[in-house]
Amino acid sequence: MATGTNRQILLVETPKGKLSPQNFSLSEGAIPSPKDGEILVRVKLISLDAANRAWMQGATYRSAVESGTVMAGGSISEVVESKAPGFATGDLVFADTGWQEYAAIPAKAADKVPAMEPMSHLLSVYGIAGLTAYHGLLDVGKPKPGDTVVVSAAAGSVGSIVGQIAKLKGCTVIGIAGGDDKCALLKSELGFDHAINYKTEAVGKALRAAAPKGIDVYFDNVGGDILEACLFNMNNYGRIACCGAVSQYDGAPPAHGPRGIPGLIVVKRLTMQGFILTDFNDKREEALADLQSWVAAGKIKVREDILSGLENTPAALIGLLAGENIGKRMVKVS
Amino acid sequence: MATGTNRQILLVETPKGKLSPQNFSLSEGAIPSPKDGEILVRVKLISLDAANRAWMQGATYRSAVESGTVMAGGSISEVVESKAPGFATGDLVFADTGWQEYAAIPAKAADKVPAMEPMSHLLSVYGIAGLTAYHGLLDVGKPKPGDTVVVSAAAGSVGSIVGQIAKLKGCTVIGIAGGDDKCALLKSELGFDHAINYKTEAVGKALRAAAPKGIDVYFDNVGGDILEACLFNMNNYGRIACCGAVSQYDGAPPAHGPRGIPGLIVVKRLTMQGFILTDFNDKREEALADLQSWVAAGKIKVREDILSGLENTPAALIGLLAGENIGKRMVKVS
Repeated sequence: MATGTNRQILLVETPKGKLSPQNFSLSEGAIPSPKDGEILVRVKLISLDAANRAWMQGATYRSAVESGTVMAGGSISEVVESKAPGFATGDLVFADTGWQEYAAIPAKAADKVPAMEPMSHLLSVYGIAGLTAYHGLLDVGKPKPGDTVVVSAAAGSVGSIVGQIAKLKGCTVIGIAGGDDKCALLKSELGFDHAINYKTEAVGKALRAAAPKGIDVYFDNVGGDILEACLFNMNNYGRIACCGAVSQYDGAPPAHGPRGIPGLIVVKRLTMQGFILTDFNDKREEALADLQSWVAAGKIKVREDILSGLENTPAALIGLLAGENIGKRMVKVS
Repeated sequence: MATGTNRQILLVETPKGKLSPQNFSLSEGAIPSPKDGEILVRVKLISLDAANRAWMQGATYRSAVESGTVMAGGSISEVVESKAPGFATGDLVFADTGWQEYAAIPAKAADKVPAMEPMSHLLSVYGIAGLTAYHGLLDVGKPKPGDTVVVSAAAGSVGSIVGQIAKLKGCTVIGIAGGDDKCALLKSELGFDHAINYKTEAVGKALRAAAPKGIDVYFDNVGGDILEACLFNMNNYGRIACCGAVSQYDGAPPAHGPRGIPGLIVVKRLTMQGFILTDFNDKREEALADLQSWVAAGKIKVREDILSGLENTPAALIGLLAGENIGKRMVKVS
């Protein structure tokens, strides 16, 4: 049995406005013992996701994170003790362990993952980010060769892969991101055709210039004004894949939705469709095989942003919500 | 060749706010002569549609109606002179003749329709209204037996048929309409399970009571606050068929869209899809056959609201936008 302390990050209280370090505290507890059917895992790499912020508020696809408890979050972890068939010490799993060094979790809530180098790819291109990009673009957005595809939060973990998959499917790809450095990288390194810096450019005007024939597929990670600008530039029969609304997670809920709904939806015969990765569990192996072949062939470049130290996890999430990362952000714990 | 005068209703100017009688004028012109490839028709029954109002402003699926010209509108008309192969005197056609007694139109812009009793069914259940209800509900909304289906403008030409088709497909049906008389009729005559009077009831609360298991399909004719109330009550994987936004046609465009977009679209994995009837031209015969069999079997009751006299057409549209009709409104011209 593991002995020693278990450092944990607690959510002190449900944030009312912008997330701040004061919403979290570092605590030390005992390393738990797994019950029958459980495994004890040591957390290695914590995944940071904009959705973490939405979970705090509730009203998502999972129950709210209660104040005073360990902050929820997915991680790659190593089994250190197993009381469940099919799991052995040394196995790697992906699970919602929360932000802590050790967790005892039901084996049925853990997905075994293969050892690989670098392990971080299990959280980026072969994790939720890569699979979300894959299914959201291909199964929801359904781009055809020659289509114009726009993706927001384009330098983020999902957007950076969406754009690259769209390119290899023969589309013209426009990324929307916050910062000239991000925009430069999208074009020079990731092969995007155009990049729009929403912090300095008028997005609607920039879209009209970059997509003179209109937008066929918009992969929406942000909602709000950028969704509205895309709506006004969609082509007839365009598809909007609704993946997230990061512009609306960190603060009060917006007073109103984007203009043009439902008028433009009708006139242009648009389809807006929301999705969550687990909707596509039955296609997971096919998706992973495609992603692996594309990475191996150099057709998808994987960007990661790895910080160190459990104590830095709150700042890592706050920074992610402010858009400071390029590619998939994670925190190395052990 | 026909001689005599041709009474016409002109759109005097593009309305800036609510439509009023002053936006129209009655004019008399000569009966036109058809050119080669054209037919001269005598207008019998003019179709009134909320979309007529949207056409005036432009930015729809057709070009705007220019001020000073005959107001656009579909009608059932009779051919009085043909200079086009395939059309003979006495044939009935559906075409955008505009609001006038006679029109010379390209034969290719006219659809021949069969003589039937009552002729008005060509504009209601077998016309744009019935076909829009059919395809929008079945091909876009895709209800399954046992689903809860909500339709707005439920006592209107489209909504009254949507609800009846949903009932015969085994769904629980809730209609939203403006007025206790309409709500009573939906339940007593058209077989709806519940009816909500949006003028006197809080729609969100009424929906929670009428649809305790949530909404699976929402057929949206109105947009605005009612769309928002439905969004908040949709079930996971629900479908919203976007048919129109009548709440937003007669006045200034809304400052904002409904709240909950895209957040609820993502979390509930909703699909919002806009459509226009012509998208389903290839399924038209099948739809008409179904509608005819349902009407013959008494499974669909057809409500019509027929006014008389070309000069009353502006008032008929203004009244339709104010919701005074039950069922399909039309004006008998000759």
